[in-house]
Amino acid sequence: MATLKVPVHVPSPSEDAEQLRKAFEEQAMTMNCFRYSLAGWGTNEQLIIDILAHRNAAQRNSIRKVYAEAYGEDLLKCLEKELTSDFERAVLLFTLDPAERDAHLANEATKKFTSSNWILMEIACSRSSHELLNVKKAYHARYKKSLEEDVAHHTTGEYRKLLVPLVSAFRYEGEEVNMTLAKSEAKILHDKISDKHYTDEEVIRIVSTRSKAQLNATLNHYNTSFGNAINKDLKADPSDEFLKLLRAVIKCLTTPEQYFEKVLRQAINKLGSDEWALTRVVTTRAEVDMVRIKEAYQRRNSIPLEQAIAKDTSGDYEKFLLALIGAGDA
Amino acid sequence: MATLKVPVHVPSPSEDAEQLRKAFEEQAMTMNCFRYSLAGWGTNEQLIIDILAHRNAAQRNSIRKVYAEAYGEDLLKCLEKELTSDFERAVLLFTLDPAERDAHLANEATKKFTSSNWILMEIACSRSSHELLNVKKAYHARYKKSLEEDVAHHTTGEYRKLLVPLVSAFRYEGEEVNMTLAKSEAKILHDKISDKHYTDEEVIRIVSTRSKAQLNATLNHYNTSFGNAINKDLKADPSDEFLKLLRAVIKCLTTPEQYFEKVLRQAINKLGSDEWALTRVVTTRAEVDMVRIKEAYQRRNSIPLEQAIAKDTSGDYEKFLLALIGAGDA
Repeated sequence: MATLKVPVHVPSPSEDAEQLRKAFEEQAMTMNCFRYSLAGWGTNEQLIIDILAHRNAAQRNSIRKVYAEAYGEDLLKCLEKELTSDFERAVLLFTLDPAERDAHLANEATKKFTSSNWILMEIACSRSSHELLNVKKAYHARYKKSLEEDVAHHTTGEYRKLLVPLVSAFRYEGEEVNMTLAKSEAKILHDKISDKHYTDEEVIRIVSTRSKAQLNATLNHYNTSFGNAINKDLKADPSDEFLKLLRAVIKCLTTPEQYFEKVLRQAINKLGSDEWALTRVVTTRAEVDMVRIKEAYQRRNSIPLEQAIAKDTSGDYEKFLLALIGAGDA
Repeated sequence: MATLKVPVHVPSPSEDAEQLRKAFEEQAMTMNCFRYSLAGWGTNEQLIIDILAHRNAAQRNSIRKVYAEAYGEDLLKCLEKELTSDFERAVLLFTLDPAERDAHLANEATKKFTSSNWILMEIACSRSSHELLNVKKAYHARYKKSLEEDVAHHTTGEYRKLLVPLVSAFRYEGEEVNMTLAKSEAKILHDKISDKHYTDEEVIRIVSTRSKAQLNATLNHYNTSFGNAINKDLKADPSDEFLKLLRAVIKCLTTPEQYFEKVLRQAINKLGSDEWALTRVVTTRAEVDMVRIKEAYQRRNSIPLEQAIAKDTSGDYEKFLLALIGAGDA
């Protein structure tokens, strides 16, 4: 369930586009007239928040389209010019279409200075098959190559062995489960893990090709038959980075809200906090399952996510994130 | 270019469905009245050929839909009941929607008694990214699991290592080529092949993720820089089955008409000929690139494909195949 709040009466895309244009122009004037004063800034940014943090993906796409037609400029480019820092990144990411946003995040994750196996894993494992497919299509369109080839090219060793099949997957999404298979594959997983063969091709095959429903059945069998949840057995060496990632794969595939809760918790608790992670999780999940992530957060941290974010962030960035996670009215 | 010939004035799907129904009913009558005579059979089967071998995929789909609505029966099931042997398989395969047909062929290829790494490779490498994607969707819908999981489950060792990435691929389809990359990856391929590391993950990565245009550029560089076409270097041990498959991958990705020419040549030249291969290539390529395959066949064998097929097959099966490869009028 989404936390995004859309007003009952939504202005037309052209009204929204016009308001955004005004916000930019006012700001430009303000900047000319009172270059060294910050007066006026707040108003404009509030308007941007009021509009963009309260429109769903289809509505934001329409606004972008209408904006480009009316003013001959890309809304995203204008936002980029007008905004700065964490607020800028949050607004830009959220305004993007979900598939384009994921393609952008995945592309960053294959680049040298922003490389991240975790983000690639997160996109591969927490999105539905069709969402992931749309990410791949957006990747083709934007970068003129495939997500898989960039992931394969920019990873090595055991990480490549795991990540390439994960991003390549087009899992079956139905609820049908084969119990005989679940039993036999639970045993395979247990045998390999007992022998510490964590990168065995059978382990990779099972986690990267089976449907989420089938995998769930397999892991339930694992738990019942061998006495431990698989992620407990995967903690043999708590400092092993590959094992950490593999546990996250399991979590992301079976209980994504718990996975995202943990990312948020670590981002917020970090000294100085990790705004990139915070922004990523809030912008990508606000329209998907943020209600459940918030429940998981409250349960685990005994403090509402809104409060934790408010304590940790400030200004327009804070306002924007809080709007996305459903604090206040639309 | 397709060899399939569709008449200028195509009857409506309901007229076609009605004609097919009549063909079945006449046949049923014939079978009752003259059980031990073959009189009458030809006519009905000729009608089936006249219709189904001269309608494109969209038209055949419409006929199936209208047929099911009008008679409450699946056209494919009726064809299965009425026809036999190679003719039956050819008509059934061709009548299927291309994506459903490939899903069916791929599923057979993962089954114990019809298992074939070659057919999996052929489907993965000769179809466009979007065609392959539609095969995967059809596979989900029909078998309630994913193509990748069945391929991964039913293959082992080096074959799994190659085939799973190939069927998982969603290659970029644009013409853009990165020449620096082509050079560096040509060198990687040459190094690995010189060391006989044919199943090296870099080799698999390059052939399974790069766009066909990019791969082509890489292989051209290979040829220019190292003096041999890659497939020549991959012939070090001519009896090695994995190397054979790897050469076929390269051929299928870069010159599919040559690949299919060879499959046809071997199917026809085999003692007793290989009807399954013949049927597969003719039914899957008639609407795609059979014109070029026929050219390649004539060039390589100095005999037109029509003549070779006519010499090697007979009866309705022969008539159906010849109709599909464009012999005679629509």
